[in-house]
Amino acid sequence: MIPEMLQIETLRQGYRERRFTPQDIALEVLRRIDAYDDPAVWISRAGEHEILQRARELGEGGAAMESLPLYGVPFAVKDNIDVVRMETTAACPAFAYTPERSATVVGKLLAAGAILIGKTNLDQFATGLNGTRSPYGAPRCVFDRRFISGGSSSGSAVAVAAGLVSFSLGTDTAGSGRVPAAFNNIVGLKPTKGLISAAGVVPACRSLDCVSIFAASCADAIRIATVAEGFDAEDPYSRAGERVSLPLERFHFGVLKPADREFFGDLEAAALYNAAIERLSAQGGVPVEFDYAPFREAAALLYDGPFVAERLAAIEEFFHAKPEAMDRHVRQIIGKGLTLSAADAYRGEHRLREIARAAARQWERFDLMLLPTAPAIFTVDQIAEDPIGNNSRLGLYTNFVNLLDYAAIAVPAGFRAGSKLPFGVTLIGPAFSDFDLALIGGRLHRALGEGVGRALAPAAEPPAVETPRAPDGRIVFAVAGAHLSGLPLNHEVTALGGVLVETTKTAPPYRLVALKGTTPPKPGLAHRPGFTGPGIEVELWSLSERDFGRFVVGVPAPMGIGKVTLANGATVPGFFCEAFALEGGEDITAYGGWRAWLARES
Amino acid sequence: MIPEMLQIETLRQGYRERRFTPQDIALEVLRRIDAYDDPAVWISRAGEHEILQRARELGEGGAAMESLPLYGVPFAVKDNIDVVRMETTAACPAFAYTPERSATVVGKLLAAGAILIGKTNLDQFATGLNGTRSPYGAPRCVFDRRFISGGSSSGSAVAVAAGLVSFSLGTDTAGSGRVPAAFNNIVGLKPTKGLISAAGVVPACRSLDCVSIFAASCADAIRIATVAEGFDAEDPYSRAGERVSLPLERFHFGVLKPADREFFGDLEAAALYNAAIERLSAQGGVPVEFDYAPFREAAALLYDGPFVAERLAAIEEFFHAKPEAMDRHVRQIIGKGLTLSAADAYRGEHRLREIARAAARQWERFDLMLLPTAPAIFTVDQIAEDPIGNNSRLGLYTNFVNLLDYAAIAVPAGFRAGSKLPFGVTLIGPAFSDFDLALIGGRLHRALGEGVGRALAPAAEPPAVETPRAPDGRIVFAVAGAHLSGLPLNHEVTALGGVLVETTKTAPPYRLVALKGTTPPKPGLAHRPGFTGPGIEVELWSLSERDFGRFVVGVPAPMGIGKVTLANGATVPGFFCEAFALEGGEDITAYGGWRAWLARES
Repeated sequence: MIPEMLQIETLRQGYRERRFTPQDIALEVLRRIDAYDDPAVWISRAGEHEILQRARELGEGGAAMESLPLYGVPFAVKDNIDVVRMETTAACPAFAYTPERSATVVGKLLAAGAILIGKTNLDQFATGLNGTRSPYGAPRCVFDRRFISGGSSSGSAVAVAAGLVSFSLGTDTAGSGRVPAAFNNIVGLKPTKGLISAAGVVPACRSLDCVSIFAASCADAIRIATVAEGFDAEDPYSRAGERVSLPLERFHFGVLKPADREFFGDLEAAALYNAAIERLSAQGGVPVEFDYAPFREAAALLYDGPFVAERLAAIEEFFHAKPEAMDRHVRQIIGKGLTLSAADAYRGEHRLREIARAAARQWERFDLMLLPTAPAIFTVDQIAEDPIGNNSRLGLYTNFVNLLDYAAIAVPAGFRAGSKLPFGVTLIGPAFSDFDLALIGGRLHRALGEGVGRALAPAAEPPAVETPRAPDGRIVFAVAGAHLSGLPLNHEVTALGGVLVETTKTAPPYRLVALKGTTPPKPGLAHRPGFTGPGIEVELWSLSERDFGRFVVGVPAPMGIGKVTLANGATVPGFFCEAFALEGGEDITAYGGWRAWLARES
Repeated sequence: MIPEMLQIETLRQGYRERRFTPQDIALEVLRRIDAYDDPAVWISRAGEHEILQRARELGEGGAAMESLPLYGVPFAVKDNIDVVRMETTAACPAFAYTPERSATVVGKLLAAGAILIGKTNLDQFATGLNGTRSPYGAPRCVFDRRFISGGSSSGSAVAVAAGLVSFSLGTDTAGSGRVPAAFNNIVGLKPTKGLISAAGVVPACRSLDCVSIFAASCADAIRIATVAEGFDAEDPYSRAGERVSLPLERFHFGVLKPADREFFGDLEAAALYNAAIERLSAQGGVPVEFDYAPFREAAALLYDGPFVAERLAAIEEFFHAKPEAMDRHVRQIIGKGLTLSAADAYRGEHRLREIARAAARQWERFDLMLLPTAPAIFTVDQIAEDPIGNNSRLGLYTNFVNLLDYAAIAVPAGFRAGSKLPFGVTLIGPAFSDFDLALIGGRLHRALGEGVGRALAPAAEPPAVETPRAPDGRIVFAVAGAHLSGLPLNHEVTALGGVLVETTKTAPPYRLVALKGTTPPKPGLAHRPGFTGPGIEVELWSLSERDFGRFVVGVPAPMGIGKVTLANGATVPGFFCEAFALEGGEDITAYGGWRAWLARES
């Protein structure tokens, strides 16, 4: 009657058809929590009375449901996020405090009709990716209790995967909202920095922290993010940005080169990554191998660079007052921050900016990335054997994402045949591409066909695409004169981030005329229907729509941008010139291009 | 008859009317430099032969001038900015190196026809606002040699104010591009961070440094900035942002509350600030007193907070290797960075974000700020008596600007009756409002009526007609045919969110031709230089840069987008068509527009 995975649309259908009420769901959730045999999932829970009271107040569907997007949806909150009158521990009892108000995001979810069930376990101070760094115990992978749940949002991921709640909030600085999603066969949305307010969240690395969402499907993640997002003046890192569109039907996606595919011997993980690439290719994606070096270098700044000191900055007073109250490994990691100078921190920031530029050059070749979420999964014992080394291996493909300001969504990607343990992949896109990224992720997840969570329930359909969008990200246009590579005006294209796509020719009916009295010297490309010439050499460059708009504004008379037909029959925007300017110019069509004419023997 | 202040439009008129040539100007500049009796202005100069050769190569006006916006304009460069084959010293001889290429911005200015004269003195490593912290001597105020020039861009400001060059480049982290402008009665544009590339500049605080422009008028500053600006992938801090518009006719401007007006006893400065407020009020501005506290707190982060360590980060190796080679005060200031931890740096960043939010709340009440540029001016002796205290007093109203990511322009604001020394005010606006800020600044400066520089020459008119932009920074373009309101293709503009700005006419030399065989029927607008027609009716529409980019892509052959000159002299993007398409069409110029032709009795 009540489904194993509490997906939002399933609950709403049940409410709508009066098959159950919010109270039924609340009772079922309480029953499941009692029955679930992992004592480490929760740090604290809302009172039973309080939960049932809340469910009763929501009534029995009807109008209230239609106006509340999360009506009667049970959820959990990672215990570094404030809920009024409940202790916030950050998995460090000596650090605990009881906040006077809830985090902004919790308030929004409650206002949308969600039912708060409790607060979940985590790696202390959200420092870790494995889920064992907590005095409240180590939550386990829902498929095999010998294995870690992943962290730091360990309890939040398990609570969703085990069907104890519909969704949960995590936080993500290095991958804490993605790695445990992969290990428990659920979706983990790591939104753009600042998209969801972090007011009322215990900072890890405050400039990098994101509130994240664990859900059973990308469709649910979108629905929750739509409620949770929004500028919040209370969070100095909150941002108001316009949504960025991705091409949804035909796109390029970055994949690791064979040499960069590190799975620490997990051959089945390697094969599952390959299979995910093939699945995404079958959905209109063209895989593009890229250079992982700048991303690897960015990732290293997080724990081997200055950013450990940002963790220290958040809790330095406590760190010095009660070092013995901290998890030994967390203390060791954060303590590295004591050795770093302010100059080191600034140099780290400068280096990060340089890396970001190198990364941007890689992004010119693809619209999104598809990476393994984690290269491997470890047992609790393996983590104990090498607590820092194995933890850092888990972050190989996640650590760079917040540093370089990307959005990411982790989706299930199948099971290892031997261990029956799940593998996950992450789609990574530019800041504010969260929603389109989730649409692509949802299709990929559904194409897998292996369901979600411990129950392997079918994932919900993604919502239909609503907003009109441009057919493609960048505009390709033709240049034939002073804007060609190496010529005096080429910098106007490159300064806007122009990328050379290819060198080709126009169709035959074009003449090229050397214009009189232009500085620098310029040719005019003139379409002559019926004329059969050699075709004129052109270069195709690409710019974003906005930069192309700017470029057109900057083109001086008598030049302008019209359409040019290429040798292959395609028509692209390209230069032409006003009719009067062609008069008196020298016809140089026979040279086949401006560059050949410039190189002529004069 | 070379004018005392070498304002750009004055030079261009002289060139156009053949009253002098670039070579004449170069010779005059060399003569003036020889005659000017302050030996501390320059650190190095381009060779006389080289300067004259460059001037000769520019020729004698004509077509070259019209295509080169800085044709024959002499300029100077602060000696922390690279010029190929000239030493960069940053006013520290032991630090000097000879770069293999010029800073990006220098390359752009040269490509636009400017003539490089030399490299100017500065406070060492651009650390100071007074101009005395250099082993190359202390440039003096052009009005009274007992007084400081201001710094750190000391030589650059004096070179312009003394009429030795038309403009100069400075750098500005704490006010170095503004304070010396105020002390020498010239304009100092401190652009939005990242608007002008800092590639090839010795960093002071790399995340805050701006290349700045000293000029004789806001009009000149705009002209130079238009050449100098632009995204540069070589500078990790370069930014591509859309221009932000300010209300130009009726606006609110923030002013200091009486309690916040600190002039260190300089009552005349206080009165001149008041007078500037009245002048701006007479130009449509409504003064609004605001709370200066968050801005004061931000300013304190620069020298009393972690940012001194960013200065250290830039030169730490040199600092440890050759401390004795440094100016004693600069060493002392930068040395404070050694005592700061990485956690301090991150806490500083976090605090700055919080302050930025408090500042943003103040900005809800005004469009721009009007502040004193500096509260007072000191003699060289006064600086020597309290070298750090008096320096920090100079930055009271400038230090916060880069930290909080604003644009600023310093303009002359009159003279103290007693000392005859100039006073200045600074207009401060949001990031990317530089150009509109300069328009308002230019009006304010001209209303003062006291001229510019040592010569008190009248400041140039702001450019007669800016390329029109909609109030929100959107692109304004002209349509003349089927895209006019109510005609078959108008929906292509409105579907993208196009807004009708106004209906007007082209300049006289345009013909309108009804094209053959187009569907729907379309006219071609054809520029005919020398022809005097009635002007063709056009509508001006606005679109965002990105939507304009999309619109251009959608325009089918034989139509395209070039430039159209309007009846008021402004030039905007607009429709034209390929030359072949005009052939055989009917000339309908006499109707004065496409709509009139469609309505003709047929």
